[in-house]
Amino acid sequence: MTDFPEVRALTFDVFGTVVDWRGGIAREAENMLAPKGVTLDWGGFANVWRKPILAAMAPVRTGARTYVVMDALHRETLDLALAEFGVTGLDETEKHRLAMGWRRLDPWPDSIEGMNQLKARHAVVALSNGNIALVLSMAKRAGIPWDTILGADLVNTYKPDAAIYDSAARFLDIAPQQIMMVACHLGDLDAAKSRGLRTAYVHRPLEWGEGTERPLPAAGTYDVIVHSFTELADAMGA
Amino acid sequence: MTDFPEVRALTFDVFGTVVDWRGGIAREAENMLAPKGVTLDWGGFANVWRKPILAAMAPVRTGARTYVVMDALHRETLDLALAEFGVTGLDETEKHRLAMGWRRLDPWPDSIEGMNQLKARHAVVALSNGNIALVLSMAKRAGIPWDTILGADLVNTYKPDAAIYDSAARFLDIAPQQIMMVACHLGDLDAAKSRGLRTAYVHRPLEWGEGTERPLPAAGTYDVIVHSFTELADAMGA
Repeated sequence: MTDFPEVRALTFDVFGTVVDWRGGIAREAENMLAPKGVTLDWGGFANVWRKPILAAMAPVRTGARTYVVMDALHRETLDLALAEFGVTGLDETEKHRLAMGWRRLDPWPDSIEGMNQLKARHAVVALSNGNIALVLSMAKRAGIPWDTILGADLVNTYKPDAAIYDSAARFLDIAPQQIMMVACHLGDLDAAKSRGLRTAYVHRPLEWGEGTERPLPAAGTYDVIVHSFTELADAMGA
Repeated sequence: MTDFPEVRALTFDVFGTVVDWRGGIAREAENMLAPKGVTLDWGGFANVWRKPILAAMAPVRTGARTYVVMDALHRETLDLALAEFGVTGLDETEKHRLAMGWRRLDPWPDSIEGMNQLKARHAVVALSNGNIALVLSMAKRAGIPWDTILGADLVNTYKPDAAIYDSAARFLDIAPQQIMMVACHLGDLDAAKSRGLRTAYVHRPLEWGEGTERPLPAAGTYDVIVHSFTELADAMGA
């Protein structure tokens, strides 16, 4: 297997890469709405909610909008998702609780085992569009063993803004090539690569649900291409 | 024992509170200098080095000096300590290695056990004048189980600047009174208290070596007054 002796830290994307946001949000939505008599495709609801969240980061990246934390984007985009499904009757406390459901996501089955293996020889660091409080709350609930969390609120922008990857090297006080970005998203990895980081693609075919799987990137596109964090740990000699 | 159900996060001072900087630096200095035939009071050397480090933070706090990370303060003050003891003949690589000895400090005997107990119910967070890379490197070597690290490089100033304590509440997205500052230094705790944080004083009588012990603060000065992190864990109901 490949080994990268120069790599000291692995920086992880969180949503989709470490945790299954779709399954978690489907559960949180069902828990909140089913007792009110709402019936819908809960996984579909999660997908519909996720899309405007991704879109809402773009104007922050360009500077057209002042940075707000991802928790706030979750709350504001919830109204769009509820409207799309014609769901009414949630009070503000319930909407807040549901928006905070993004702090209660579960890791993919291999995530924690792989991270614990990787921790023996590498710093295991969140490099997330989530704010620190969001990623920390999620970690405490789910047992995700971060060595430290670099949230988007440290730089006040969102990936794939180059400033995020550059900040990781600065905060960790190592060269970009001593960092390996771990993500299931090509845009995140491409941006990391362009800033000099190593890259590990992890295949998460169920991120958006059954039937949405895309092909693996071509061999050589990234330094490592794997199907799980435990496979990544093998590749890194952990 | 006292319990503080509203406290969600414990923010820890690192140098002196979690780790024994004096013992670690004495060892690092001896490892570097003894093979060169230098003999001196290694603990005294650590004390002499520590004092200008503390002094060097003051102009950063006041704005008279642009923020530089603590690693850099370690390097620049090393020259003062070497001069004070009349030690010469270290090359730049050796000086760098010795300055980075502040990343290789060991915890007090109770630190890790107490933190692991506290982690079950609280976020265990570094709120350090050290930069993230310094505190992270130390943690990886020594097995210090941070949930996350808030380094001074996130705010570009040094404790007891109020901005540091305020930033902890902002980054953790909780109220100041939901945070308990843990330190062995009165100035750190007094500043935290003035910003609305809860406070836990931990007695570390050997921080500056034998014979330097100061009395405990008067009962009621801080929310908790203990002699170890395991006693703190008991006090917090962990």
